[in-house]
Amino acid sequence: MSGASLVLGGARSGKSAFAEKLARDSGLRKIYLATSPRIDTETEERIALHLQTRGRDWQTVEEQLDLSSALEDMAAADSIILVDCLTLWLNNLVFHERDLPAEIDCLYATAGALQGRVIFVSNEIGMGLVPADALSRSFRDAQGRLNQRMAEVCDKVIFVAAGLPLQLKPSSYMDQLS
Amino acid sequence: MSGASLVLGGARSGKSAFAEKLARDSGLRKIYLATSPRIDTETEERIALHLQTRGRDWQTVEEQLDLSSALEDMAAADSIILVDCLTLWLNNLVFHERDLPAEIDCLYATAGALQGRVIFVSNEIGMGLVPADALSRSFRDAQGRLNQRMAEVCDKVIFVAAGLPLQLKPSSYMDQLS
Amino acid sequence: MSGASLVLGGARSGKSAFAEKLARDSGLRKIYLATSPRIDTETEERIALHLQTRGRDWQTVEEQLDLSSALEDMAAADSIILVDCLTLWLNNLVFHERDLPAEIDCLYATAGALQGRVIFVSNEIGMGLVPADALSRSFRDAQGRLNQRMAEVCDKVIFVAAGLPLQLKPSSYMDQLS
Repeated sequence: MSGASLVLGGARSGKSAFAEKLARDSGLRKIYLATSPRIDTETEERIALHLQTRGRDWQTVEEQLDLSSALEDMAAADSIILVDCLTLWLNNLVFHERDLPAEIDCLYATAGALQGRVIFVSNEIGMGLVPADALSRSFRDAQGRLNQRMAEVCDKVIFVAAGLPLQLKPSSYMDQLS
Repeated sequence: MSGASLVLGGARSGKSAFAEKLARDSGLRKIYLATSPRIDTETEERIALHLQTRGRDWQTVEEQLDLSSALEDMAAADSIILVDCLTLWLNNLVFHERDLPAEIDCLYATAGALQGRVIFVSNEIGMGLVPADALSRSFRDAQGRLNQRMAEVCDKVIFVAAGLPLQLKPSSYMDQLS
Repeated sequence: MSGASLVLGGARSGKSAFAEKLARDSGLRKIYLATSPRIDTETEERIALHLQTRGRDWQTVEEQLDLSSALEDMAAADSIILVDCLTLWLNNLVFHERDLPAEIDCLYATAGALQGRVIFVSNEIGMGLVPADALSRSFRDAQGRLNQRMAEVCDKVIFVAAGLPLQLKPSSYMDQLS
């Protein structure tokens, strides 16, 4: 029982809104951990809009790279942290040439040992055609591996499509093969 | 209880065939509302083939843009309308520079108030890599928002993969977080 | 009851690892049928690594094109064959200009009549944006049709995301429309 949840979904699938609902329903003190880089005015405006939509009862923290430290600093028994999202975090790591496997291992370890609740939001990006360029393939692969690792350490994994949840973990799958 | 259903799926996922089966199983009078534009000979031929495959017990109507009016005109207690598909409709709206949020709001309202059954078929296009061009990103975002809105107003949402259905709504998801 | 299973998933979804687990859990003699072409050193190295990871209790066979014959030759009541994967096989067929519908029909027939267990691994590639080039669209369509046909003939179809299984067949879907 790690206290960590993973909300997976495609672009504009309603995954963030669903994760926010999970956080609100917990009744705990809510912390929003934004990983989006402030790269241009468009991003700035979107961040401001999101902030307004969530409301004043959320504490917002920004961390583009050192997610594990940020989580360890903020985690507490009476709070729930919403990390939105792991795809932007991965993108930041690639941009700053960090060691991806090491960073993913570190987040995996942190998520498993965290005192308090955390919800990770992440993108599913591997269900389209194979990208033509090597960089895109490599990012898609890293995202897939990250999602698998986080799904392993989280108690709860939800897949969201059109705003609606499908529970992946705990699994309802029954092996009837053997 | 709106009497509206949404069948979501990727390209060549078998979503249309599944939606046609739902319509046939209803035992109601079947109306096929095609949104595909007749842009070239290839499209014409595909439309003719689809028409033949469905059989003579379907009434076929074409409407590329004003979906809400067409639905209101045709809806009746003894019939079921299959709208195939919302992705082509959205594409037509973009091509004709219609106001997307207003059009989506209008369809949402129509679907919620319709007298009679309707099945909407729509594509899931947000589970691949982030598209490089802004126009593709914008279309993907509009499709995602449209799917979320329609999922909200429909009583029943089915995700189809490899011709097989996964029920998204009514949801079997149980919130065990809190 | 065909004894055939299909494991579907996106890139880096953990589908192969899940299929290997299914094979190990069966307690049967394990045969790995690799469809990957040996096109360059990178591929050679990946094949060698996969071989090592699976362990010595797997028999490994390579077949890039004539999958049906290979399956018929190797199938036996005491063994389970893991075909990894149908997407690379389809890619090989396209490269060698084989007749895709005929090849898919042949595999469908073989899977339905096979004496012994087989697990097919295949990619979901139709949930991203519509590809701009006709060749990519055509491959995506062929993959979609192949997945639908194989899902029809298999007793069991599992969708894998982030390493976690969702059972598509036998279906838990209940038609509550009519």
